[in-house]
Amino acid sequence: MTDEFARIAKYFAPLAGVEARGLADDAAVLAPPAGRELVLTVDQMLEGVHFLKHDSPELIARKLLRRNLSDLAAMGATPLGYLLTTALPADLGEHWLAGFAQGLARDQEIFNIKLFGGDSASTLDGISLTATLIGHVAPGAALPRNGAKAGDGVWVTGTIGDAALGLLARLGKLADPDGYLTGRSLLPEPRAGLALAGIASAAIDVSDGLVQDLGHLCAGAGLSAVIQAALVPNSPQAAAFGPDYLEARLTDGDDYELLLAVPPAHEPALVAACGALRVTKIGTFQPGAGVRVLSETGAPMTFTRSGWRHF
Amino acid sequence: MTDEFARIAKYFAPLAGVEARGLADDAAVLAPPAGRELVLTVDQMLEGVHFLKHDSPELIARKLLRRNLSDLAAMGATPLGYLLTTALPADLGEHWLAGFAQGLARDQEIFNIKLFGGDSASTLDGISLTATLIGHVAPGAALPRNGAKAGDGVWVTGTIGDAALGLLARLGKLADPDGYLTGRSLLPEPRAGLALAGIASAAIDVSDGLVQDLGHLCAGAGLSAVIQAALVPNSPQAAAFGPDYLEARLTDGDDYELLLAVPPAHEPALVAACGALRVTKIGTFQPGAGVRVLSETGAPMTFTRSGWRHF
Repeated sequence: MTDEFARIAKYFAPLAGVEARGLADDAAVLAPPAGRELVLTVDQMLEGVHFLKHDSPELIARKLLRRNLSDLAAMGATPLGYLLTTALPADLGEHWLAGFAQGLARDQEIFNIKLFGGDSASTLDGISLTATLIGHVAPGAALPRNGAKAGDGVWVTGTIGDAALGLLARLGKLADPDGYLTGRSLLPEPRAGLALAGIASAAIDVSDGLVQDLGHLCAGAGLSAVIQAALVPNSPQAAAFGPDYLEARLTDGDDYELLLAVPPAHEPALVAACGALRVTKIGTFQPGAGVRVLSETGAPMTFTRSGWRHF
Repeated sequence: MTDEFARIAKYFAPLAGVEARGLADDAAVLAPPAGRELVLTVDQMLEGVHFLKHDSPELIARKLLRRNLSDLAAMGATPLGYLLTTALPADLGEHWLAGFAQGLARDQEIFNIKLFGGDSASTLDGISLTATLIGHVAPGAALPRNGAKAGDGVWVTGTIGDAALGLLARLGKLADPDGYLTGRSLLPEPRAGLALAGIASAAIDVSDGLVQDLGHLCAGAGLSAVIQAALVPNSPQAAAFGPDYLEARLTDGDDYELLLAVPPAHEPALVAACGALRVTKIGTFQPGAGVRVLSETGAPMTFTRSGWRHF
């Protein structure tokens, strides 16, 4: 592979916004949008943990950005740009880097963001990537994780469990004839651009599994939540499996849908704010602690694990 | 090791600023200082590349912050806080994490910065760390890398080459009786807080070696530079080696001193701005391209390599 400076000039300089100062300075300089607060988030993706060596570099790049964009969406923030670090094995081909940069470019255009700066290093083995995303919100309008109130509804955007089934399909464990589930696992759709300030009292993106992430909203607010498994929205492709894989669909991560606490009085505004995007009430926040999932008969369901943790 | 959420609560929550929202939200929220521009930089440190497995976790943490603080210093920026990612082997002991958090806490206090947020993951092998530092400057006052003018002096803060010799000492290749050189290699001193806006026309921190980093200032401005090896400031500990290791001292990185382009008329202001910190003129920017290093006899010196690159 060509050396560090040649790589930066060839692949990353074309992605850079004016804030990056040509990727030639020691740091980026950003004039914050007047009268707005900044929202900052960082996520990493590691070979062998978040992706496999032979996954498409374009999809890896896009997923890296989209996981962070989903975090901004869960704060109600509008994205501006990002900083990137890459640690790449010395023997990784130019082909990989070209695909990676192409993926970044594509999502920069879709989400109207620019590269602000970064750092590159070479490793003996194993690809390691991080992106720090910067967005903005009106002062005080960032959606909290801890704001749910007893009586608020538990709402989710889109459909839940597709990514869990898609991962099983990628592992050859189930059929995915039209590739939809695989696609949902490889390329999440961050729910950016929803104007939820003043509507949702709390928000999180579903990245560790619905049950676990709902548990975070409960713990943050000192509440419990009851949801009905039958109300959790499925795609037609997931619905085709019937009750099979229900545990995986409710407890495996990576849907990147928004999970919201919404007071009943705000439900019409929520539906209006979501426009063409499906949004579904699946339960209620209540006094107490923990998450209960009820089956169609109203019996509490138990799961062997609630969601993904890094140990 | 305890799980992700317990680790965050125990080691990282005590480091968090109000911007981190208890490290419980999806992202940090920062009200930018009124009327200032933000300066953003990111650097990573990888086991086997930037440090060794058995290096002190406290020093690794401090070096991670200080490398980034040095980048902010090279922009003339005042630091505010940082985002952190850690990817740690599952079998790493609590002892390591406790030391790492202690190092962060110590430098947070010294440099008046707070933790704003982050992300943690576990790896099969190999520690990988990144920090994104956020600082601020007066609008338009960020020091550029490309602003040197022909006739500007080449200036450096502190002393050059200690870290290169310290690395050799750590590898057992030379003696370091008082540990000074080793210390300079393990724990850089970022030259934060110097008010150089309006004084220096260009700045960079010496992280890839003096000759290579001077080459960046030259390339950015479309100029050449001539420096005299005998003028490059040495610590007494480095001076004791006489002309030995001169190439390493001028071309190996990690000094984290500032390298500046300063018009002759600004020299008194430069010396005043540096206060107790030594600052030394070692050469001049001229028309042309590239860096020439002259020996005491005025003969051009040649080196086998100009500095550190990641291939």
